Amino acid sequence: MLIFSTDALIGLSGYAGVMESLMNSAEEQQPTSPITNLWSKKQEASKNQKQKLVGGFVLVHAGAGYHSESKAKEYKYVCKRACQRAVDRLKAGALAVEAVAAALVELEDSPFTNAGMGSNLNLSGEIECDASIMDGKSLHYGAVGAIGGIKNPVLVANRLLSEAQKGKLSAGRIPPCFLVGRGAHEWAVSHGIPPCPSEKMATKFSLSAYKRNKRKMELAEKMDTGHNQTKKRRQSSENVSTVLSVKCNISTCLMMVDRKWFRVSRHRGSRCSRPREGNVAAAVSSGGLAMKHPGRVGQAAHYGCGCWAENACNMNPYSTAVSTSGCGEHLIRTMLARECSVAMQSEDAHQALLEAMQNKFISSPFLASEDRVLGGVIVLRCCRCVEAPPSQNIQGILVEFLWSHSTESMCVGYMSAQDSKAKVSFSNTSTRAISCMTVALGQPGAIVQTYTKRGPVEMKAPATGGVMSGQFRDLLGLMWRTAERSQSQPCQTQSKTVTNFEV
Amino acid sequence: MLIFSTDALIGLSGYAGVMESLMNSAEEQQPTSPITNLWSKKQEASKNQKQKLVGGFVLVHAGAGYHSESKAKEYKYVCKRACQRAVDRLKAGALAVEAVAAALVELEDSPFTNAGMGSNLNLSGEIECDASIMDGKSLHYGAVGAIGGIKNPVLVANRLLSEAQKGKLSAGRIPPCFLVGRGAHEWAVSHGIPPCPSEKMATKFSLSAYKRNKRKMELAEKMDTGHNQTKKRRQSSENVSTVLSVKCNISTCLMMVDRKWFRVSRHRGSRCSRPREGNVAAAVSSGGLAMKHPGRVGQAAHYGCGCWAENACNMNPYSTAVSTSGCGEHLIRTMLARECSVAMQSEDAHQALLEAMQNKFISSPFLASEDRVLGGVIVLRCCRCVEAPPSQNIQGILVEFLWSHSTESMCVGYMSAQDSKAKVSFSNTSTRAISCMTVALGQPGAIVQTYTKRGPVEMKAPATGGVMSGQFRDLLGLMWRTAERSQSQPCQTQSKTVTNFEV
Repeated sequence: MLIFSTDALIGLSGYAGVMESLMNSAEEQQPTSPITNLWSKKQEASKNQKQKLVGGFVLVHAGAGYHSESKAKEYKYVCKRACQRAVDRLKAGALAVEAVAAALVELEDSPFTNAGMGSNLNLSGEIECDASIMDGKSLHYGAVGAIGGIKNPVLVANRLLSEAQKGKLSAGRIPPCFLVGRGAHEWAVSHGIPPCPSEKMATKFSLSAYKRNKRKMELAEKMDTGHNQTKKRRQSSENVSTVLSVKCNISTCLMMVDRKWFRVSRHRGSRCSRPREGNVAAAVSSGGLAMKHPGRVGQAAHYGCGCWAENACNMNPYSTAVSTSGCGEHLIRTMLARECSVAMQSEDAHQALLEAMQNKFISSPFLASEDRVLGGVIVLRCCRCVEAPPSQNIQGILVEFLWSHSTESMCVGYMSAQDSKAKVSFSNTSTRAISCMTVALGQPGAIVQTYTKRGPVEMKAPATGGVMSGQFRDLLGLMWRTAERSQSQPCQTQSKTVTNFEV
Repeated sequence: MLIFSTDALIGLSGYAGVMESLMNSAEEQQPTSPITNLWSKKQEASKNQKQKLVGGFVLVHAGAGYHSESKAKEYKYVCKRACQRAVDRLKAGALAVEAVAAALVELEDSPFTNAGMGSNLNLSGEIECDASIMDGKSLHYGAVGAIGGIKNPVLVANRLLSEAQKGKLSAGRIPPCFLVGRGAHEWAVSHGIPPCPSEKMATKFSLSAYKRNKRKMELAEKMDTGHNQTKKRRQSSENVSTVLSVKCNISTCLMMVDRKWFRVSRHRGSRCSRPREGNVAAAVSSGGLAMKHPGRVGQAAHYGCGCWAENACNMNPYSTAVSTSGCGEHLIRTMLARECSVAMQSEDAHQALLEAMQNKFISSPFLASEDRVLGGVIVLRCCRCVEAPPSQNIQGILVEFLWSHSTESMCVGYMSAQDSKAKVSFSNTSTRAISCMTVALGQPGAIVQTYTKRGPVEMKAPATGGVMSGQFRDLLGLMWRTAERSQSQPCQTQSKTVTNFEV
């Protein structure tokens, strides 16, 4: 899931950052003079307006794998709920990393996703979860692997991240970023995260899947009897149920860019306020492969493999957030999340993802021995605009979000903080798919304009309801297809300049 | 530790591969005719000579951290023993990945290294180890994290690697590459690796260090009482013992290139035999930071962070193997092993490592909030030679191995299969250090020549004893210093062509 929260995207580009810094300094100064009182009133008015104008964007997925048609409605519903939860948190002033964790809790709590409640059971019939979270601003990271008895593993990962941000522990010890198993459980409980009996985390769906898988395994192992050579044994097993480990692998993840997107130059007329910095965050949670060995850790707990978030910096023009799903071993050995993030720094996002999925995953030399490479990825990137002419008022931002999968299906939800409800896309294909969308976020009816290396790009936000506009390209097919980048074909080419909004 | 095993480096470049393939086909054919008998005799002679000529190179380290002066002798001794063990295995025909595991077992068994026996104790007074291994040929990887009650964690990692290479499990399940905690222990025991009671793994050194560290922690926490603010609390703690987590962090790792280095073109006179392919392997094992939280997993179990091995391929002209040591959290968040491997593909190895350590580690944006960045790395790379003129006989290979650390000290050992004993270097500095060495492996007294992109490079192997020759640059100093690459300054510039050796 990708969320990006852009408080001020509604024609107020660049104002939020200043507003926040003024507020912070006001709190420190505790103004008493009439001048500061006046200033304080103005600032309070800003605060009220701020609450109305808080923005952002969130993208979630409910896993790449096989989604039962009969449960499609539930998958869509939970994706929408997760988006809503993140947007609610954004509106309450949460940062990217907090909102992303909140949305993931929603997905973990659903009995239909393979994360938290209703996770796949392992060989011993137990639930062991992986989760990780990354903050694009501090580049801190927290992860838990094979943790049992915790309903929301992402909260433990998030707590590890925030504890690490506080600095060293007593006696100069370095705080951990990755905890596993029993130790992770104990750490979580000692940090106030309530334990949950393992049996309460299993659902009727996960239990029946476990029984079904166990029968399949027993059947496969019976058929193996008589075959002495490992090679033969394994080949025969594959004939019985190759899909066992694929069908139930629906992990869950999300990412966001928070409302601190803008840093403002307050000198009117010259180098007007423009987006310079964005906080992205990404998180992922998974119950892992069905019938996995106890103690197995998948990509969801692995740095660079399950999720990645990196703010724009001098070297990187784009803020990127990535989250993956699928067969953990494939995603680990290709470090897919980080590879996609690196790829997203090139000009054409769609082409870059296409090439990354093909060269760094499907045809990766690291997976040369695999007969089928299974995974999916969601990607969000926010353009860090290049120099804008002094006469222009930049009042919006372009967000590109993409997803791609080599698994049978993938369920994706997305929402901007100005939308009244989330949208869901259920891509169901047995072949490779890549989807790409560019959205403009801004005041309803306003022209949202941004500057890329290629020059100005403009899009018109819808006149009524919400602020999302864009071109949606859903490219499914038997083969990878190249397509023109959405961003290079703006749906509006007007160069209207809109009014500045007072805050 | 870096080992590269080059059966045939002794002026027999390119012959071993053929010899091996002939031997294999001979076994399959079971020759009966007089002609094949004759051929068989010749082949047996080759076999005998092969045993004498088996070659390779190994590089190990006993950790980057703080090595007590009083134990310097023991560290050196165990490094030498590990090198010897790997070379013995190479001479017995082992592949890179097998020999690297054997050497690591030696290091784990030493009570002086922080791996296996004598590992650091965690907060609860228990030993939990991390280990991983990577095969540069198959690019397979196996790892265990926070595993208790196993004397040689690297053997579990190696077994995971070899099991994964066999393909899918019953019912199409994907074999795990990373197991942690209790599950990892159970998997190990069920795969024939004997358990070892935790109390037997603790030594008098590790127990006394634990008691000392515990006292320091208690003292630090007492001092914290009264400070309410986290920031203040942590600052005061640092004053007590910032080095607690550094002093005991001595992890252990090794890498090698095995004897299948050469692929031979048998057409004499034209494109003579030359090294084309090399199998490198890398492994690492660690007891982790002293007083770590139970369940904490460090870089030694983390893909891309603890070790990396990648054979030369179309995209990469060099085979590289890397292993890291130091503060796990720093090494994870910078993915140092993989970053160094990527850097090693540039022409100048010394400059590349210098830049990688500076830009990707010391000054990494991922560690911007850290006051001190602690780590060390050993790197081996083998040149994949570019086109050689038809008139030349290439009879050796150049190996570059380098190490660098930001910790107080690092102990490194290295040995070629033709050396009678290993060499050890103990770099002890409180500042940054980088060391670089280029060695030529070949028949004693022979000119070893290889072709790089820059043109021919020649070095003379010593006339007596062993086959290692080279230039050693140990650049220690207060600041990073750049230096000319050793390889561009061959110690011998003769262009003598030596006799072909019959095998």
